[in-house]
Order: sequence, then structure tokens, then C-alpha cells
Amino acid sequence: MQQEMVSKKYDIIAIGRACLDLNAVEYNRPMEETLTFSKYVGGSPANIVIGGAKLGLKVGFIGKIPDDQHGRFIQKYMADAGVDTSNMVTDQEGHKAGLAFTEIKSPEECSILMYREGVADLYLRPEEVNEDYIKEAKALLVSGTALAQSPSREAVFQAIQYAKKHGVEIIFELDYRGYTWKSVYETAIYYTLVAEQANVIIGTRDEFDVMENRKGDNATTVEHLFKHRARLIVIKHGVEGSYAYTKSGETHRGTAYKSKVLKTFGAGDSYAAAFLYALLSGKNIDTALKYASASAAIVVSKHSSSEAMPTVAEIEALIQANE
Amino acid sequence: MQQEMVSKKYDIIAIGRACLDLNAVEYNRPMEETLTFSKYVGGSPANIVIGGAKLGLKVGFIGKIPDDQHGRFIQKYMADAGVDTSNMVTDQEGHKAGLAFTEIKSPEECSILMYREGVADLYLRPEEVNEDYIKEAKALLVSGTALAQSPSREAVFQAIQYAKKHGVEIIFELDYRGYTWKSVYETAIYYTLVAEQANVIIGTRDEFDVMENRKGDNATTVEHLFKHRARLIVIKHGVEGSYAYTKSGETHRGTAYKSKVLKTFGAGDSYAAAFLYALLSGKNIDTALKYASASAAIVVSKHSSSEAMPTVAEIEALIQANE
Amino acid sequence: MQQEMVSKKYDIIAIGRACLDLNAVEYNRPMEETLTFSKYVGGSPANIVIGGAKLGLKVGFIGKIPDDQHGRFIQKYMADAGVDTSNMVTDQEGHKAGLAFTEIKSPEECSILMYREGVADLYLRPEEVNEDYIKEAKALLVSGTALAQSPSREAVFQAIQYAKKHGVEIIFELDYRGYTWKSVYETAIYYTLVAEQANVIIGTRDEFDVMENRKGDNATTVEHLFKHRARLIVIKHGVEGSYAYTKSGETHRGTAYKSKVLKTFGAGDSYAAAFLYALLSGKNIDTALKYASASAAIVVSKHSSSEAMPTVAEIEALIQANE
Amino acid sequence: MQQEMVSKKYDIIAIGRACLDLNAVEYNRPMEETLTFSKYVGGSPANIVIGGAKLGLKVGFIGKIPDDQHGRFIQKYMADAGVDTSNMVTDQEGHKAGLAFTEIKSPEECSILMYREGVADLYLRPEEVNEDYIKEAKALLVSGTALAQSPSREAVFQAIQYAKKHGVEIIFELDYRGYTWKSVYETAIYYTLVAEQANVIIGTRDEFDVMENRKGDNATTVEHLFKHRARLIVIKHGVEGSYAYTKSGETHRGTAYKSKVLKTFGAGDSYAAAFLYALLSGKNIDTALKYASASAAIVVSKHSSSEAMPTVAEIEALIQANE
Repeated sequence: MQQEMVSKKYDIIAIGRACLDLNAVEYNRPMEETLTFSKYVGGSPANIVIGGAKLGLKVGFIGKIPDDQHGRFIQKYMADAGVDTSNMVTDQEGHKAGLAFTEIKSPEECSILMYREGVADLYLRPEEVNEDYIKEAKALLVSGTALAQSPSREAVFQAIQYAKKHGVEIIFELDYRGYTWKSVYETAIYYTLVAEQANVIIGTRDEFDVMENRKGDNATTVEHLFKHRARLIVIKHGVEGSYAYTKSGETHRGTAYKSKVLKTFGAGDSYAAAFLYALLSGKNIDTALKYASASAAIVVSKHSSSEAMPTVAEIEALIQANE
Repeated sequence: MQQEMVSKKYDIIAIGRACLDLNAVEYNRPMEETLTFSKYVGGSPANIVIGGAKLGLKVGFIGKIPDDQHGRFIQKYMADAGVDTSNMVTDQEGHKAGLAFTEIKSPEECSILMYREGVADLYLRPEEVNEDYIKEAKALLVSGTALAQSPSREAVFQAIQYAKKHGVEIIFELDYRGYTWKSVYETAIYYTLVAEQANVIIGTRDEFDVMENRKGDNATTVEHLFKHRARLIVIKHGVEGSYAYTKSGETHRGTAYKSKVLKTFGAGDSYAAAFLYALLSGKNIDTALKYASASAAIVVSKHSSSEAMPTVAEIEALIQANE
Repeated sequence: MQQEMVSKKYDIIAIGRACLDLNAVEYNRPMEETLTFSKYVGGSPANIVIGGAKLGLKVGFIGKIPDDQHGRFIQKYMADAGVDTSNMVTDQEGHKAGLAFTEIKSPEECSILMYREGVADLYLRPEEVNEDYIKEAKALLVSGTALAQSPSREAVFQAIQYAKKHGVEIIFELDYRGYTWKSVYETAIYYTLVAEQANVIIGTRDEFDVMENRKGDNATTVEHLFKHRARLIVIKHGVEGSYAYTKSGETHRGTAYKSKVLKTFGAGDSYAAAFLYALLSGKNIDTALKYASASAAIVVSKHSSSEAMPTVAEIEALIQANE
Repeated sequence: MQQEMVSKKYDIIAIGRACLDLNAVEYNRPMEETLTFSKYVGGSPANIVIGGAKLGLKVGFIGKIPDDQHGRFIQKYMADAGVDTSNMVTDQEGHKAGLAFTEIKSPEECSILMYREGVADLYLRPEEVNEDYIKEAKALLVSGTALAQSPSREAVFQAIQYAKKHGVEIIFELDYRGYTWKSVYETAIYYTLVAEQANVIIGTRDEFDVMENRKGDNATTVEHLFKHRARLIVIKHGVEGSYAYTKSGETHRGTAYKSKVLKTFGAGDSYAAAFLYALLSGKNIDTALKYASASAAIVVSKHSSSEAMPTVAEIEALIQANE
């Protein structure tokens, strides 16, 4: 993420899942009473690169999609959004796209009904990860959910080994989804193995607690991680705002922007997209935290996650309005 | 299906899957270009009992549904349609509802994108099948797809043993879906084991071929099955119409009714519902074949399968119009 | 088993497992203190055909053996013993031979430590069962344990369909081993499905209870089975002797012979071998029961099961000595 | 392994498998012709701690054993040999002990028939690894085979995290067994993840090639590993001897001792036991390599692996005889 990397072809390449969101068309009611669903691309790392592309970053994606109508829709949508999809692999074993049916009972009461059994994204194999592709990125963004099962887990470790070999920064978005994991011990072990190799780590306090398999505190968390390869750690505390810690010892605080919340989905992904965009554009950490909060505030006021990703102009307008 | 059974509480109890259909709202195009889907109850045996209830039959259902919004929707929809759902079991292990995304490119070119991995209906266990419930039915309708995996397969065999014990007729709707089965040999074996115990067997010629694991002919098929417990066998030949064979040696031919076809889904289920309704109402086989064809013709002209099931009046009107 | 079958090439073809027994060389002690084990062929249906061959029957075997030293030993041992092994299939997927480590603490306290995880015999597939081979047998002997898992379960049903098609008698040896089964309901269902198609059924009272999934009695058991295809049912009650029931209504009682018991393994297999030998040789049921008891008495006094199978002379000598 | 650690309760705690070897009593022939087998404790890490205990090291073992006669034999044998077994967990899910039937056709032609399906050792869970126990060791010895499957793989990573936290040295014995692994990519990934955290790494050149997933050379291998936490790397080249590389840049060569070879099994384990004993006793690397070679030479001349582990006196006598 420094100047000497400027010549790289991609700012960020993400690895993980690209799925479908099926969002209730009729909302503010239980899903049982919803009869129509709108289809969007979803999945945290997919959302982040789509958001990044919309902000002007050069982004690519490594993942596995099904050989069916949903898979083709995902690839086309992402390509149209400006994401390089040359390294998205088409599954040949009948696996399906992950699905997230969203239920919006009220802004405070949202839930997701997930289809994650035998989904294509978790079948990406290590030998399908391309060393030359990763080499061309400034940063590799790893989504924690991709660690939940083999062989996707090994594909991520393979990507990390390539990234380290070629001096590509590793960004770890914890992105924890309990339903995909077999045990809390397993999660803690693999999250720790990746976090100790990552340069930038972003997650909610709850997600860091999952990684540590205990109720922890920020001071202890960052002290441990800065002993390894981390240089920047962002810990989000919901409406109370977020903290960015640097290896050099600084702490930066970001505050959440008020917005008319429709639903809570997609907030974290839009946060990460804008935060990384700001950093890669050379803005300082305080500014990056503002971009992140503004981006999250915009997405939660809209119906979708991927489609709703804001432009730089929208973000800056919101920041301006709140200064 | 005879007079002495008149005192039974249910005309038909079906065992098998109750799932969701997600039908393309925008059709006559590839699914990749469909952005909205409508939700309906689906699954062959569920459709048949919903259709039967609409025609006035007393029907019940044995199956397993997920403990989520989709499961609750399915149960409520079926109960509202007049199906007894007291023996639908709620899954406690996180299994999901089967999904069928339908694609209607043109009336001739329809396809289905299925989600059948780890679905609740295939996890019905034999000990969850209630002997006293089956005893109260004139007929038990078995859907072939319920044989595809354990423990649903064993639940079906359990239901069949109860039916035989209590003199309940066994209707076998072949309902073959290739994607759920591991091998053609396995299908042939279990289809044969059930067909040899069934009193009424209904399927397409292709489905009977699957059962025999060879390209067969009606004469040989019925000769074999009449050596066992069958008394009535219906073999459907698509637009060429269908044949009903009786143990006593009669052959009845049914012809297909012309209709403005929107899609081909649901034709078989509406056929079976109307055919069984007619038989149970004391109509003769030729009339039952007309009801079946008329019912199928009506459903293929509409957008859904379950919701589109016709009334007796609609069926009789179509028959009238074609006499 | 009648005269008209005399022209058949085989008296009995068995389907099921052929495994290894590893018998404690030092016995009358816990297995923890045993340091040496002797290797024998084992597995109920293998033992029965080996025993049958020794008595002069023409026997064959359908089963799957591993592609390793144990598999080759099993095949050679059986061939040398006079069993036709032309239809034993060699596994190509790395499955292993089942193992039974026997522990003989005292004649009354014997136990077996089984290795049955991923064993080759349970991977026999229906398409590996040869119709022409079964056609050449007077009787097909089905071992209940072969029903425990797919695809072996389906291979058995395939064999039964061929047997029925060609008028080959079906002998069902219940041979129940709890550790291979997932649930008592599953066992009851498949045992019943096979028993209702079998002509001769042999098992202990405990095994019939497993089949009925309740504590039952002989009268009810035979009443039910004689409604299907059974003509002869043998129910063993341990030291109290055994009962043979015929469809025509006769009951025959067999008494156990006293012997110096070394261990209890192998008694049932030697019983079945001698009983079937006697029947196929035209002896009456009372005599067949004597042969069975004598054969069992001889095997329990020796160290192995397969290797210890007696000759006709040995059996007749024991009978003589007890008249 | 330095002076300041002298106060620790254990010199080495190993984590991994403790299994059974079933060695042909009659050898110099194919296993098909072997009729008797002798039972020994086996498994690389179990052999190493047994060997270490015999040499006077204070050793402990972390692993999972079955709740059966084999499991009890293993635990008692190891305890009697002087290994602390307080952290060996008894499996409660019916898993069995791994088995290795050894075939000795000639000293040059030895092979092993493995039973590794569903074995207890691979079911050790991370939450069964005790932090306080590992803290008490100078070194944690990790066997590569324990990485082959979940949850044993995660148990190893958990143990490594504890070892790093408490300054316990990590010794990685590559111990690669192809049959337990699903893919070469997976092996390479997990071997690399552990090797980059280990302080001492021991393996054959072939095993290092597996770790690198290519035909590599020692210079490149050690250059990479010394960038991480390694301080000592031993690469064995069979009869050509072995090389020990130190972080400070030294290379030490060990030569193989001649001996009357009976079989090749157990050589690597006895090598590791004696090498680590010598290092922990303060001997220099050249001497440690001699101890290792002598120990290996003694074991290959005997029938078993664990039971044959030599004493210090035997090792020193062989070294003396060859000076």
C-alpha cells in the first residue's frame, strides 16, 4: 500500500465467496409473508471488491462459482461492475451458489436465512490459486469465512504463501459467520494462524473475541498481533464507532454517521471498501475512518448490499454534511 | 379405494417432500436475466395433496420441514389449502427447504435449478412415521424421490409396511429426479422394491425405463408388475397421451388436451391429483383419464404449480369444451 | 432345494463378507496380554460356504475383497477350500479387509474387537453382481450384515431380484452385528424387506427380535413370515436348542450337543453349513437339525471358525456317540 | 533445549499417533504366507518417546487411544516404558487403533499394510490439548502425520500455539505417510505452516520435497526455513548419510553405520530419539548425528521398532566399534 507498489496491476485482489442475496421485496414483515425476492450478488469479499471498483480501485477476485445460471449471473455482474474475474473458477462438481434470503422485519430486526451446504465457494482448491495473479496485486484481501472448510481453507493458505513470497500485503477481514464452522476451537485456531501472517486486520470486537476464543479487550488483542506481521488493526464497536491501531503505537477513533437505517446488512463490507480505498488513495487514517463510516451509513439506508455501494462523491457529500 | 373404506378419515396421505418453488417473475428469458422470483410451495407429493384438497379430497401429508421461515411458510400454506399437516415433522438439525428456481425461456425450453443438498425432506426418519396416522387413510401416496437417500428412504419403507399391515392401498408416483440419486442401479433397485408392493403405479414411460434400468415397453412392464400387488398402472407418453392398465387385462387410453402452454412444470402433479380424485369419487377409468389430462392442461398454462391447481368446475369446463 | 434343481452347477452361492479373524494364540486371558495372533479367513457367509465345501457341497461366493495381501490370502484360502471364487470382486478404491481380533478370557467370556470401518465387503456394488452366476445356483444365501450399508445393501437386493427371476431359492441368515448398523429402525426395515422375499430364514431368537424391533415370540414371527414367501424358518435359542417351522405347520425341535467349549465363535456358521448340507442331501428336518447341532458343537471346541469346520464323518461320529 | 530450561518437568512431549504394529512372525516371505503376527506399540511419535525414555529422557505423550483392548495395551506399554501417559485421551466415539501389518520379504523388500480409516489418533480435538502440560516441556515434538486430518490437525496447531506462548521449543518430525493425505497440495500447505513455526526440523530429503511440493535441494530448503523460526535442520539422505544445518551457517554431516539389516521399519524413529537425546544431554551436533546413526543401525537389525529401541550403552558400544 506504499508508493513503490504503484506499478502493480491491481490494488486489491480478494479471495473468498461470491454468492446471491435474495432480498425480500415486501419488507417490514416476517419472511413467511414475503412472496417476492430480488436477486443481487452478495458475499462479503465480493461486496468489498464491487464497492472498491465503484470507488475507482483496480480490483480482482479469486473464487469458485457454480456452472449454472446463478454462477453466470454472479460473474457477469461482477465483471460489469469493474471487477477482474479472470481468476474466478467454474465448479465442475455440481456445487451451487450460496444463498442469503434476507428478512427485514424492522431496521432493528433483520435476519438472514442462509444456504451454505455444499456451496461452490468452499470448494476452491489450492492448485486453482494462481501465483502470478496474486503477484500483480498491492494487497490480498482474505475473508475469514473462506477458512471455514476444506479445500477453500487450503486455497486461502496457498494464496497467503504466494502473497508473502511476493511482498503482497495481506488484509484479513474477519467476516465471521458462525453457521459455517464446526467448532469455536477450530475457528480460533485458523483465525489466529491467518491473523499472525496478516498486515492489516479488520473486524468487529465480537469477531476478535471469536478469534481469541474468549471475551477480550483491544489492548491485549493489538499487543499480541503487533508481535507478528500486523501494521494496522481496525476494531469496530458498532454504533460506538471504531478504533484503528498502528504498530507505531497510535490509536485513531472513528465515529458512526447517523442515517435512516433500512436494514443492517452490508454495513461491514461497505465500511471495508471505503476504508481501503481511502488508504490506497494516500489519505490518512482519520480520513479513512470517516470514509468507512460514511460508506456504511449509505448502504444501510438502501435495499441491497452490492448494488448500493456508494461512489466517492456520495461518501464525500455525507462527510461534508456532517462536518 | 373401494366403498368399504368410506369410513376412513383421509382419502390420501402422501409421503415425501414439500419444498419451495422460486418462479421467475420476468420470464421468456434466461434466468441470468431474471431479477425477481415469486415464492410458491412445491414438490411433487405436496402439489398432489394441495391439488387433491382443492378438488375436495380429504388429504394429509407426512414429511419433514426446516425450522425456519421457509418451513413455516410451507406448513401454513398447505394447512390453509386444506391439507392436514399434523404429521409434518420439524427438523432439528439445521436442514433447509429444497428450492427449485424455475427458468422459462420459452414454453418449449424450461429448466429448473435445484437446491437439494442437505434438504430437510430427505431427513425424515422411520421412527417419525406414525402407524396410527397411516391407518386412517384409504391410500398412501409414495413419491419416488423420497427413496433417493437415507433416512427418508427407510421412512418410506416403514410407511409402506404400516400401509400393508392395515390394508391401506399404496399408490406409487414414480416422480424420478435424476440429480438426487447416486446411481441408476440404486434407483432401479428401490423403485422395483416399492413397485412390487404398490397397488397403483403412475409414471411416464421414461420413469418406468429408469425403474427397469433399460429401454422397456408397456406390455412387459405391466406383465411383471401384475405378478405382484399392482391392480392399476398408468404410463404416460407426453403429448401422445397416456395408458391405464388394469390387472383384469383392460387397457384405457387418455388423450392430452390442447392448451396455451406457458411452461411444462407441474403437469404431472396436477394429472395425478385429478386422476386420483376422479377414481376416489367413483368415476370410471376413462373419465379419470380425462380429468387428469384436463387438470394438466390447465396448470401448464399458468405461472405456478401448487397455486394453479384447478377446481372441479374448471376441469369439467375444459372437458366439456372438448367433447 | 428339490430334485428338479439337480442340474444346477452350484448348491449354494453366498453373498456377503469374507474377512480375517485374528485369533489370540495365547488365550484364557484378556486380549491386552495377548502378544500373538493367528490369521484365519472369517465372516459368517464365508465360513458357511467353506464349511459347506468341506461337507461336499458345490459352493460359490459373491463378495468384494481388498487389493492387498489380506485380500489375496482370503481368495486363495477359499479357493483352496473348494469354494468357487470367480465372482469375488477386487476392490479398486483402497478399502481394507474387515478384521476380527478375538479375545478368549474363558469359554463363557469371549469377545471380538472388530475393524469394520471402510471395509471392502460393504463396497460391493449392484452392477458387480452377475445374473448368470446366480442363475446357476440352487440357493442364494444372504447374510444380514451385507445389508448394513450402501452399496452392499443394494448389491444384495440386486442378487435377490435375480434369484427370484430365475427361481433360485433365497436363504436368509440373519447374522446380525449391531456395530455395523446406524439405527435399530433401519435394521428392522431391511431385515423385514429381505425376510419377506426369502424361502428359508435362519437366526437366533434375538436376531428375529431385532428384525421385528420388539421382544417377540416364535408363533407370531412364523405366522407373519409364512404369509410371504417363506417355507422353512429356523429359530435358535442357544443351549435350549432350536426350532424349525415349516409352512405346512410342522414344528421340529433340535437339541444342542454337549462339548468341551473353547470359545463360542463360529457356532452359528457351522450350524448353518451342516443344516443346509443335510437338507440339500435329502435328509429330513430332524436329521438336519442334528447335523447342525453336531457341527456347532465341534467348532466351539476348536481354536478357529473356518479352519475348524468339520467333515461329514466327524459330524456323524458325534451324532452316533450321542444317540 | 538450553540450560535455563533445566527445571522443566519433561524433556520432550510428543503429539501424534500411538498405534499397533502387527509384525510377521514368519518372515522372508510374502504376507499372504504369514499366519502369525506379533503385536507391538507403533507409530512414529510413540516410538520416539519410547526410545527417548529408554535413553533416560523424561518424556510425555499427547494423543488419543481407543476405548478397547488395543488402546489399553498401548497406554500400559508406554507407561511401563517410562512415558508419561497422563495426557493420552481415551476416545469415546468408537474409533479404533491404527494398525500396521508389516511384511518382510527380504531386507530390501519391506512393506506395510496400513489400517488408518477412522483411527482414534486422528480424532484428538484441540480442546483436549492441555496448555499447562505443554508448558512443562523443554520441547514439543510434532509428527507430520498428525496434520493429515481434522480434528487432529487443529489439535496440533493448538499445541503449537501453546508451545510458542510458553517458550517451548518446537521439533517437527516430518514423518510423511502418503496414504493418510487427500492431496499433495494440502500436505505442502500444512507442512509449510508448521515448519515456519518450528525450531528444529527433521526429515528425509523426500519428505522435504513433499513439503515444498517439488524436487528441491538442501541449500534452498534451509535458506527459506532459516528466515522463519528454525535454528537446526536435519535432512536425511538414506545410506548416503544425513546433514544437519544450523542457523549460524554450519553444516554437519553424519554417516550411516553398517549393520545386518532385517527390515527398514523404525530406522527414522530410533534416529530421532537418539539424536534428540544427545542434543538434550549437551553433546555437540557431530556426536548427536553419530548417536542417531548408531541407534538406527541397531533397530533395523531387530524384529520390532518400539521394543527394539536401544540403550545408551548399546549405542555407545556401536559407535566405539566403528571409530
